[in-house]
Amino acid sequence: MTDDWADSGIDLHLALDPRDKAGSLASSIRDAIRTGRLAPGTRLPASRTLAADLGVARNTVAEVYALLVAEGWLAARTGSGTWVAGRASSPAPTETLVRHEAPRLILRGGIPDASAFPRGEWAASVRRAAHEAPVDALGYPPPLGVPRVRTVLAEYLARARGVHADPERVVVGRGFADLLSLIGRTLVAAGARTVAVEEYGHETHRAVLAAAGLRLAPIPVDGDGADIAALEAVAADAVLLTPAHQFPTGVPLSPARRVAVTAWARRTGALVLEDDYDGEFRYDHRAIGAVQALDPDHVAYLGTASKSLAPAVGLAWAVVPQRMISGLAEARRVAGAGADALSQLALADFIESHRYDRQVRRLRAEYRRRRELLDGLVVASGSGARVRGLAAGLHCLVELPAGVAADAVVAEAARREVAVEGLAAYAAHATAAARTSTIVVGYGAPPARVADEAIAELVAAIASASPSRS
Amino acid sequence: MTDDWADSGIDLHLALDPRDKAGSLASSIRDAIRTGRLAPGTRLPASRTLAADLGVARNTVAEVYALLVAEGWLAARTGSGTWVAGRASSPAPTETLVRHEAPRLILRGGIPDASAFPRGEWAASVRRAAHEAPVDALGYPPPLGVPRVRTVLAEYLARARGVHADPERVVVGRGFADLLSLIGRTLVAAGARTVAVEEYGHETHRAVLAAAGLRLAPIPVDGDGADIAALEAVAADAVLLTPAHQFPTGVPLSPARRVAVTAWARRTGALVLEDDYDGEFRYDHRAIGAVQALDPDHVAYLGTASKSLAPAVGLAWAVVPQRMISGLAEARRVAGAGADALSQLALADFIESHRYDRQVRRLRAEYRRRRELLDGLVVASGSGARVRGLAAGLHCLVELPAGVAADAVVAEAARREVAVEGLAAYAAHATAAARTSTIVVGYGAPPARVADEAIAELVAAIASASPSRS
Repeated sequence: MTDDWADSGIDLHLALDPRDKAGSLASSIRDAIRTGRLAPGTRLPASRTLAADLGVARNTVAEVYALLVAEGWLAARTGSGTWVAGRASSPAPTETLVRHEAPRLILRGGIPDASAFPRGEWAASVRRAAHEAPVDALGYPPPLGVPRVRTVLAEYLARARGVHADPERVVVGRGFADLLSLIGRTLVAAGARTVAVEEYGHETHRAVLAAAGLRLAPIPVDGDGADIAALEAVAADAVLLTPAHQFPTGVPLSPARRVAVTAWARRTGALVLEDDYDGEFRYDHRAIGAVQALDPDHVAYLGTASKSLAPAVGLAWAVVPQRMISGLAEARRVAGAGADALSQLALADFIESHRYDRQVRRLRAEYRRRRELLDGLVVASGSGARVRGLAAGLHCLVELPAGVAADAVVAEAARREVAVEGLAAYAAHATAAARTSTIVVGYGAPPARVADEAIAELVAAIASASPSRS
Repeated sequence: MTDDWADSGIDLHLALDPRDKAGSLASSIRDAIRTGRLAPGTRLPASRTLAADLGVARNTVAEVYALLVAEGWLAARTGSGTWVAGRASSPAPTETLVRHEAPRLILRGGIPDASAFPRGEWAASVRRAAHEAPVDALGYPPPLGVPRVRTVLAEYLARARGVHADPERVVVGRGFADLLSLIGRTLVAAGARTVAVEEYGHETHRAVLAAAGLRLAPIPVDGDGADIAALEAVAADAVLLTPAHQFPTGVPLSPARRVAVTAWARRTGALVLEDDYDGEFRYDHRAIGAVQALDPDHVAYLGTASKSLAPAVGLAWAVVPQRMISGLAEARRVAGAGADALSQLALADFIESHRYDRQVRRLRAEYRRRRELLDGLVVASGSGARVRGLAAGLHCLVELPAGVAADAVVAEAARREVAVEGLAAYAAHATAAARTSTIVVGYGAPPARVADEAIAELVAAIASASPSRS
């Protein structure tokens, strides 16, 4: 912790291009880390100090630091300064720091196979939408979504996910993070201060909520999903949950906790944010409905077309309590428009023509096949590793054999051109990051033509990093 | 100013539906205003008080008040409470308060004719984009835009608008307000506090900048455009300008002031936000290039496809100084995605195939025809009214004859099913609102089949509201 820039004894040459000070400073620091001139754990000077040294604006240095933190080169915590990432002194899990130049085989969590996007069918829906849209629908869209699309989504979500939806409470956005940000800012405007998050999840989702003005309070996750009892202690105004299939640990929220979290929300006036990111992808015919149906007045349900169609269509939806509608409309007005009306109308056409259901069924079969391939190869490898998590979705956990660190498998996988991450890369705080012998396998991510190769290479990497068993 | 709810002597029945307290409260207040039970100027109880009276959460009342302010039924100012709009005691210009139930003929400013949207050509571009996109482009899009689209836009903007653009500094967003919000938040993160705005402009743009965390400082607008000398006094970190065609007064920023504003930005380190919302629509063959070309390091140029294609496509672009790029990427990451990748790729196809240029030429001819029709009818009316503003864009001012109030014309137009607004409706502060005998005519707004009727009805309304001339 006491290593600092000056003590490191390095004559650090930071080449600044006067035409692009920020860009060249960032490149210089990246180079210095990449080449080892700046070692992990080295503390960087305060932005004010470095700015004075270099003769640049302090904001330039602060922006560069923020960028490099976002990219994973640096780590920072308020009050503790900024350091080169990759030491135990940093709360950032070390797995996130293994960087690759565009690895060929991606098995990161939370990414769907974009090669499965039904290009022709989607283009046909856009064409119908463009031709059939009334002139009014081609103008500036209503803030919360095109009415017809809200109606179609309400019907679909009631049918497919058991959501208690009426069109008035459906909000269409341009992606999950867009709606999360909108809801977060609406909560803050209404006086909310703290949002609880599962101790494992997407770092970006936490950053979105923090940027909306909310304090984050991580709660534990165990074999029954998020620990709802822990909500009492953190005085949360809201909680972000993944009830159908906890991301990334893969467990569903237990029935008792579903009841408990809605009871908590009713009692405290808090809001449950239900991230149903892959609720459509369950392989065991025991689909769990949305928690939202238990209490539509205290749960905001969120879903996305990024997994079922492709991230490139940029559409997501929420079903919110009625009392939030006016606040959301105002938040939308001052944050810029949501999803474009043509894409929304194309989605309505795509769902109404049952192409959406067919696409989900196709994907479900393919993702299930990949999951079973991974299961089979892991067992056959004899490494002692075990696949964990519900048979659902686009990812699972692999618990490594005793004594095998996730870092070692991540590094061995990288040598085989496979990008995968340890569970700690998804941790909201250092305590959660302690589970260092588990990796998250996003088998949904690779395009179909390389999916089997990616899975096989990963299992080979696990076997290679594991002690040989008699 | 002393009228208040209790003093008004009205037994106000606010019917609350327990299943939708906010919605039913809003409806009740709207009804009370519409039917005259709540008169203009009546002060409403504090949200805390009304909440206690009704037994609802204070936030519910605050949200309903905010919604009704946004809709124009109520007016509010920090420290002065909330009142029924429509009195001189309100800083809101009275013209904004004339409300219509979906008037048939729209001549409001800032709205393009969506009926001119080239449906088939756009759908063809989407189809090509969907078929030709590499798989990578179907995944989560890069935060600032798809690289190919940034390249195409850089070429187009250099050619068509003289913008000093390279693809690295082009940012694609899903609308002007989206990019304005993103730039605003990036400025705030870098320490900016105050943004100057023209004293006449879109209320929504001011609200977007305020929501981003900036204080607004209105500066005067005269016959040479925004008064750049006034920037010194307000210590602004940035200024939002409409240099090509001031919105809505219609004057271009004079050459001397173009030089002055970039000199000011260089000297103070401030940023000029150049809103080039209709720069493509000039009818006199003397197109003025972008201010951005004078100093690309201190001007962020913003343009949109909402006017040239349709708001429903949801695309806009900015060209920003290099030093802002990393900050904008981080702001995008925590605010949710920008424009969807497929629409971006469709735009690239649409521009590269020169369909975009053709569409702009078609629209320019139609809007020019409407402008000339309005000019001719106003002169022929003999009312003494005069059309003002550059021969450009989708709107102009009409100065009414001496003694004729904008309010009277707006009301007479409403009786003829024409929605039009006084200049004061665009005012950033009460002083600017003093120009009460000028209306803004958005001749671009109506669909082609009713455009001529709308213009003729408006001119008839002006003549009807004007004293007869000998």
